[in-house]
Amino acid sequence: MYIVIAGCGRLGDMLAVQLSRLGHSVVMIDHTENAFGKLPGEFSGFTITGDASEHSVLEMAKIKKADCLFSVCLEDTLNLMIAQLARHVFEVPRVFARVYQGSYEDILGALSIEIICPTQLALSACLASLTSPKDTPEHSG
Amino acid sequence: MYIVIAGCGRLGDMLAVQLSRLGHSVVMIDHTENAFGKLPGEFSGFTITGDASEHSVLEMAKIKKADCLFSVCLEDTLNLMIAQLARHVFEVPRVFARVYQGSYEDILGALSIEIICPTQLALSACLASLTSPKDTPEHSG
Repeated sequence: MYIVIAGCGRLGDMLAVQLSRLGHSVVMIDHTENAFGKLPGEFSGFTITGDASEHSVLEMAKIKKADCLFSVCLEDTLNLMIAQLARHVFEVPRVFARVYQGSYEDILGALSIEIICPTQLALSACLASLTSPKDTPEHSG
Repeated sequence: MYIVIAGCGRLGDMLAVQLSRLGHSVVMIDHTENAFGKLPGEFSGFTITGDASEHSVLEMAKIKKADCLFSVCLEDTLNLMIAQLARHVFEVPRVFARVYQGSYEDILGALSIEIICPTQLALSACLASLTSPKDTPEHSG
């Protein structure tokens, strides 16, 4: 798959590496060039320095060819804007936005944008942990 | 269960309400009183304004009687400090720290502190979403 990731923060960084490792073609966009410094050598994709909420920057990333876009910038509102552009202007088949504020979910569902809400995921994990035996996790990777 | 939550941000807030709804006794600690303004009327627990990394504040929350503590303040390092105090000074049986930086996991596992890492959870959700059919989620609650 051809995948565009907007935002090379902690999540974008990890996502890029994993998707790249799985054999996908990945393009990363971030407005600061320094952000790409954290990407390990094994990342085989391209990087673009620019604001992913601008048409020209998304076009530079060949957004029209993308099978999927993940918008994982720091701010929820920026992710909403980028996701809407990708989904409704450039008609990317699958668009995911990370939003911390759970209340956006209904709006985004209606806009055909899929949500990754870390707050909701963490809440579920907390509640599930309480009812499971104590475990000091050793996540792989 | 008697549960102490440090940090009344987005996650702390939701957690307090859910745990309260499940019939647990909940005490919330936050260093700003305004933070408690977001708690809905149905929250039946207590609130303490203070710095949860201070012994005296944890003692005010009757930490020694707690079955469990969740440290979900904004900063990873603060959560690490509070979690260590709760686990190793006050011997709270189960202690959970939210940390965005995944690399703390090994250290905390060794310290017998359980981790909630939203970054890791979001990464797993992103990767799982890609291989599942398109779905515009309508989470309940």
